[in-house]
Amino acid sequence: MTRFESDHPEWGVIAEQLAQEFAKTAAARDKAGGTPKHERDRLRESGLLAMSIPQEYGGHGASWPETMRVVRTIAQADSSVAHVFGFHHLLLATVRLFGSEWQLAPLFEETVVRQWFWGNALNPLDRRTVAKADGDAWKLNGVKSFSSGAADSDILIVSALNDETGKLMVAVTPSDRAGITIHHDWDNMGQRQTDSGTVEFRDLRVDARDLLTTPGPLGSVFASLRPCLAQLILVNVFLGIAEGAFAEAKRYTQTRGKAWATSGVATPSDDPYILRQYGELWLALEGARLLADRAADIFQGAWDLGDGLTAQQRGETSIAIAAAKVSATKNGLDVVNRMFEVMGASATSAHWGFDRYWRNLRTHTLHDPVDYKIKELGEWALRDTIPTPTFYS
Amino acid sequence: MTRFESDHPEWGVIAEQLAQEFAKTAAARDKAGGTPKHERDRLRESGLLAMSIPQEYGGHGASWPETMRVVRTIAQADSSVAHVFGFHHLLLATVRLFGSEWQLAPLFEETVVRQWFWGNALNPLDRRTVAKADGDAWKLNGVKSFSSGAADSDILIVSALNDETGKLMVAVTPSDRAGITIHHDWDNMGQRQTDSGTVEFRDLRVDARDLLTTPGPLGSVFASLRPCLAQLILVNVFLGIAEGAFAEAKRYTQTRGKAWATSGVATPSDDPYILRQYGELWLALEGARLLADRAADIFQGAWDLGDGLTAQQRGETSIAIAAAKVSATKNGLDVVNRMFEVMGASATSAHWGFDRYWRNLRTHTLHDPVDYKIKELGEWALRDTIPTPTFYS
Amino acid sequence: MTRFESDHPEWGVIAEQLAQEFAKTAAARDKAGGTPKHERDRLRESGLLAMSIPQEYGGHGASWPETMRVVRTIAQADSSVAHVFGFHHLLLATVRLFGSEWQLAPLFEETVVRQWFWGNALNPLDRRTVAKADGDAWKLNGVKSFSSGAADSDILIVSALNDETGKLMVAVTPSDRAGITIHHDWDNMGQRQTDSGTVEFRDLRVDARDLLTTPGPLGSVFASLRPCLAQLILVNVFLGIAEGAFAEAKRYTQTRGKAWATSGVATPSDDPYILRQYGELWLALEGARLLADRAADIFQGAWDLGDGLTAQQRGETSIAIAAAKVSATKNGLDVVNRMFEVMGASATSAHWGFDRYWRNLRTHTLHDPVDYKIKELGEWALRDTIPTPTFYS
Amino acid sequence: MTRFESDHPEWGVIAEQLAQEFAKTAAARDKAGGTPKHERDRLRESGLLAMSIPQEYGGHGASWPETMRVVRTIAQADSSVAHVFGFHHLLLATVRLFGSEWQLAPLFEETVVRQWFWGNALNPLDRRTVAKADGDAWKLNGVKSFSSGAADSDILIVSALNDETGKLMVAVTPSDRAGITIHHDWDNMGQRQTDSGTVEFRDLRVDARDLLTTPGPLGSVFASLRPCLAQLILVNVFLGIAEGAFAEAKRYTQTRGKAWATSGVATPSDDPYILRQYGELWLALEGARLLADRAADIFQGAWDLGDGLTAQQRGETSIAIAAAKVSATKNGLDVVNRMFEVMGASATSAHWGFDRYWRNLRTHTLHDPVDYKIKELGEWALRDTIPTPTFYS
Repeated sequence: MTRFESDHPEWGVIAEQLAQEFAKTAAARDKAGGTPKHERDRLRESGLLAMSIPQEYGGHGASWPETMRVVRTIAQADSSVAHVFGFHHLLLATVRLFGSEWQLAPLFEETVVRQWFWGNALNPLDRRTVAKADGDAWKLNGVKSFSSGAADSDILIVSALNDETGKLMVAVTPSDRAGITIHHDWDNMGQRQTDSGTVEFRDLRVDARDLLTTPGPLGSVFASLRPCLAQLILVNVFLGIAEGAFAEAKRYTQTRGKAWATSGVATPSDDPYILRQYGELWLALEGARLLADRAADIFQGAWDLGDGLTAQQRGETSIAIAAAKVSATKNGLDVVNRMFEVMGASATSAHWGFDRYWRNLRTHTLHDPVDYKIKELGEWALRDTIPTPTFYS
Repeated sequence: MTRFESDHPEWGVIAEQLAQEFAKTAAARDKAGGTPKHERDRLRESGLLAMSIPQEYGGHGASWPETMRVVRTIAQADSSVAHVFGFHHLLLATVRLFGSEWQLAPLFEETVVRQWFWGNALNPLDRRTVAKADGDAWKLNGVKSFSSGAADSDILIVSALNDETGKLMVAVTPSDRAGITIHHDWDNMGQRQTDSGTVEFRDLRVDARDLLTTPGPLGSVFASLRPCLAQLILVNVFLGIAEGAFAEAKRYTQTRGKAWATSGVATPSDDPYILRQYGELWLALEGARLLADRAADIFQGAWDLGDGLTAQQRGETSIAIAAAKVSATKNGLDVVNRMFEVMGASATSAHWGFDRYWRNLRTHTLHDPVDYKIKELGEWALRDTIPTPTFYS
Repeated sequence: MTRFESDHPEWGVIAEQLAQEFAKTAAARDKAGGTPKHERDRLRESGLLAMSIPQEYGGHGASWPETMRVVRTIAQADSSVAHVFGFHHLLLATVRLFGSEWQLAPLFEETVVRQWFWGNALNPLDRRTVAKADGDAWKLNGVKSFSSGAADSDILIVSALNDETGKLMVAVTPSDRAGITIHHDWDNMGQRQTDSGTVEFRDLRVDARDLLTTPGPLGSVFASLRPCLAQLILVNVFLGIAEGAFAEAKRYTQTRGKAWATSGVATPSDDPYILRQYGELWLALEGARLLADRAADIFQGAWDLGDGLTAQQRGETSIAIAAAKVSATKNGLDVVNRMFEVMGASATSAHWGFDRYWRNLRTHTLHDPVDYKIKELGEWALRDTIPTPTFYS
Repeated sequence: MTRFESDHPEWGVIAEQLAQEFAKTAAARDKAGGTPKHERDRLRESGLLAMSIPQEYGGHGASWPETMRVVRTIAQADSSVAHVFGFHHLLLATVRLFGSEWQLAPLFEETVVRQWFWGNALNPLDRRTVAKADGDAWKLNGVKSFSSGAADSDILIVSALNDETGKLMVAVTPSDRAGITIHHDWDNMGQRQTDSGTVEFRDLRVDARDLLTTPGPLGSVFASLRPCLAQLILVNVFLGIAEGAFAEAKRYTQTRGKAWATSGVATPSDDPYILRQYGELWLALEGARLLADRAADIFQGAWDLGDGLTAQQRGETSIAIAAAKVSATKNGLDVVNRMFEVMGASATSAHWGFDRYWRNLRTHTLHDPVDYKIKELGEWALRDTIPTPTFYS
């Protein structure tokens, strides 16, 4: 296993610049919905799409903690873009985790050279796409919902059920291959520019070499790191949203807030109750941040072990990520709700679009139920048992 | 003081029918914003605008608890309409509370006969409108923000500061009188059809008879019931929003929800965690309902005492309402947030518009800071002191 | 069914006087543990043991809401005594609910005349006591744990499993009948004077006439009100504990509390954070009180229906009580925990014994798991289903 | 500044062994109160009293994170002993922070050689002890409350107010010097073996060389680290209590818990609600642990800077510790309360003494008000201001 070693210390700077740029239009684009084409192209130009690709394939070899920090920074400004950016790297990792060594070079190198943006059409809960053998190849038919980032993608990872065995198959295909229709039907209350709509397949031809079969979906302990990485990306998107909301609220209280009539203080920054709110919200974020950062470090450690990773180690990685996810979910929702209490009624003007923080986080935290993550933590805490790997655990 | 005695036992039925009608278009109108002209006219036709007017003036003499139940029922479907409807009755009560006996008959009778809808331009925190003596009359100049329900209103209550004394003056004026411009500039994240925008006055002539000066704003203990009624209306709007959200979630879980993959149960209605959520949310609403209903009863008792009302009785009324408001705020926000956890990710489709419950409640609960209501409860609980009457206490 | 009609309006006064008397020694008796013999005798003398007995049997015919208020008042001072007092009335009601009409007169009349205190040896979860037929009579052998109030009782209600059918049998027996040993083995962290220890039976003879068999345990819808009453008593004990704690804290803050060094205020009564705490705690109690009072009223309505009570009505009664119980549990625990934050470190001196509020409430709220009460509320809220009657639902 | 470098890698092992030993008698000693003489002597023998003393003085040069881990380990079993052990090291650090270089060698070396246990009579909030000049020396008269660990101590740190300037003076004195009376008057609901009672001074002679005057109390930025260390010790005692409670609950659920009658599962370890509770409690601890460990690391970094420490760095250290303290307080209280819900009613038997976790934590967390720590976090979060150093900030 090649340990990533970043050749590029300035990811934080680039990400921060892009975040500032994206922030300017985030409220307007949230309102408009649709594909953030300009922002996706800016990511293509930035080199960030190649950051997690090992240097031997021309990438920058950033570690997962580094990649997560970039996801989080972008999410502070625009959680839709952050989500598809994070999942782009998840899809690259999927090739590594589910596929064969020989499949890496062409796909990774092309990604670097052509600035490919990967899109997702792998939704294991949606069982409507079926693969039928067609000589040496396969034909895929059906639809996939929640295909985040498929629109404007260059290459897709798709899943289908083998019509004979019922087993999940995962393949890589250029997004413009005949038989693929990407519907622009995502209209949601939050995460509005993730294009998480429907992709439709009509006799999509998939060749054997396009399939990720060694070891295939969750086919080894190492391969079962994929859901861990997916969940870790969610953690960082959640946390970024909450951090963005907190920063916005702070700016507002300082510059536009007014002390309440009966508060007896001159500015909201002196109000004991507003200070209390900030203290609580900041602490909530601080705890979630530590859990998230630790989870990323543990994940990197697990990743570095490659096929040497044991089930127990994988389980503990999963638990560290689950802990961070529950914390980011609960504390994040607290921030995006209560941020209004420290800004006051005037902050509800549509001019600001501050409700998008809640809408984005509320939407994204439903990816899979937090109650079942808490249950996993309980099984670990009480019974010392690790989660059974699934696409959500 | 005339004790209202309702001649009309079917308010609940009428309100329920209107609510069902309004519910069909609520999501679409939330998206569109603007004035709910059709719904306002339906209210005009329904007779509900005259419900709180005593029978001696041709009204129906509904009690305040009856009126609050109608506000709440409408809020379950459409909290913008419920807000302006509730404040219509607050403005009628304002004439009774701030004005003279002789002012009641013409205003109340015209309201009944002409189906007037009253609008609000009384925002004591916005000190930009000034009244200058002009012979026997006054000229008003300036602007008022947060003038809910001014658009499409027939008659307005406006406030201004006396340019000599700095005292608050309150007057009644037809909405179409020369010098009034109602701006359609309300664009907010929630309560989008309340038209809570700006009203502008240029040399608006107000005659002495238009002024509510006996006893005037908070000019007696009885007059200081106005903020109590305003807060009681908010309580019922908040609670109605939460009840509407709860009913929507219940319907969704029962008809569209899916059991989670690892739950081991067939339907979400058997999921132990979903049952827990419903148990907690229902209990939260149940407690808030009891506090709200008791507050309405206590308010009615205070109202019935008229000028016999003591400051202590008024204070205890205010505390009962404050208790209901804090409970409706906190428990309501819990419902509109967590409702998504019992519906799942598919419920975030813009098709449903379920986020409007949170946007409406989050917006409206910022009317005045809940932290200061809790402080008032604390002063009552620890020091046995009642709140000093203000426009918010 | 005889509707109780209290002939005695002064229960509140008597209860209040006893509570004040009990309060003086409550901390010392909590430390000592054992049987509160003096206080039990004071209750015997007070007439309160006969309050729920219908007037036709010489009792005072107090309603259940009246009886619950007395339970709550005593619990404010001494929750151990309140518990055995409440369960005394539960055991009287058990004769009515599980037994035959002809059994009432002798037992109720003797209770009035001889000032009997009833004790509990009916613990359906403890299955170690068995009844064996012995001619016309039965012989009971085994032990019962959690037999609250058995010590110093005059008469007991005991349960046993029929050794042939395995069915639960319930009987009434004088506490001093041969074959009964009441062990003084209750040593607990809370509710230390409830004598909830072990009762042992060795060939205890129970005659057919001692058995409550018509309709017997939960043998009819009406009979299944017993667990409702048991739970309602718990609600009022919980709430009384919390109210007692709140009153104690308030007294302490007002008379002994000191403002924190950096608070900038002169007394704790001016501290914004202490006011906030009091506001929140008071509101928590206020909501729980309304739910408890409503539950008592609903229970009385159900009781008055006697055998006309439907399963649905019984179910809704159970839900109202469950709602009150969850609220009293959660809000009560909040009060007995946070009361220290408004008193400060000096209030932890053993001199005050303030920890007994938490120890008593924490202990008693474990009677049956609150999580399963919440689940019952959820089944009601989501599925509109009522709880299946058991000894805990 | 000498950077401590531990010569002893086995602190964890020794502490763990002592903790297991102390645990066996902790419940009984909690009941008895008084001085844990045997346990204090075991600490003397263990070498742990010298662990934080630099190697140049014969100590073991343990870092503060190492010392904190030992405090936490002991607190898991016995938080009274952990408190006086932690404060022993605080008092050693006080000599370093408030005194002169030349005072270190004799005091530190004697501590190592004679296995001195340091005791506390420095309570800046108790202003009743006064120092009067008496030639070159001083005479101290008055009393000090909350003098934890003074009983059975070998040497004391005492504070007094200079009777002329009103300034706080801090001195070191053998515990058996004439004029010192240590009252055994600590009788508290929690932390019962900390001997936090009263120390009385009658003409206690303090020589100039006994005084810590260079720079004296909070006399430099570095000296103002003392309250940081005091608070950090509290954090680790709090966390240790919660961890001990959690471990106890887990053991109980696994070995003695019973599934609830209507749960439908065979053991409590399969109960969805019990799993949920464990998940939440474990996560609460996990977050608090990360904050506590980070705070200890940051404190060590600040300590290592010595007089090079800037006010800003000291402020950020204080904030990191405050964050950990609020988290340990809130999450810890949650654990010691809810632990009973996963064990059930039988766990309230006095046999177990499980209430001591709550009593200990509830008592100790009142050391200074958590609300004002949250306010400090708010001032940091909103205004970017650091706390003003006091004995509590």
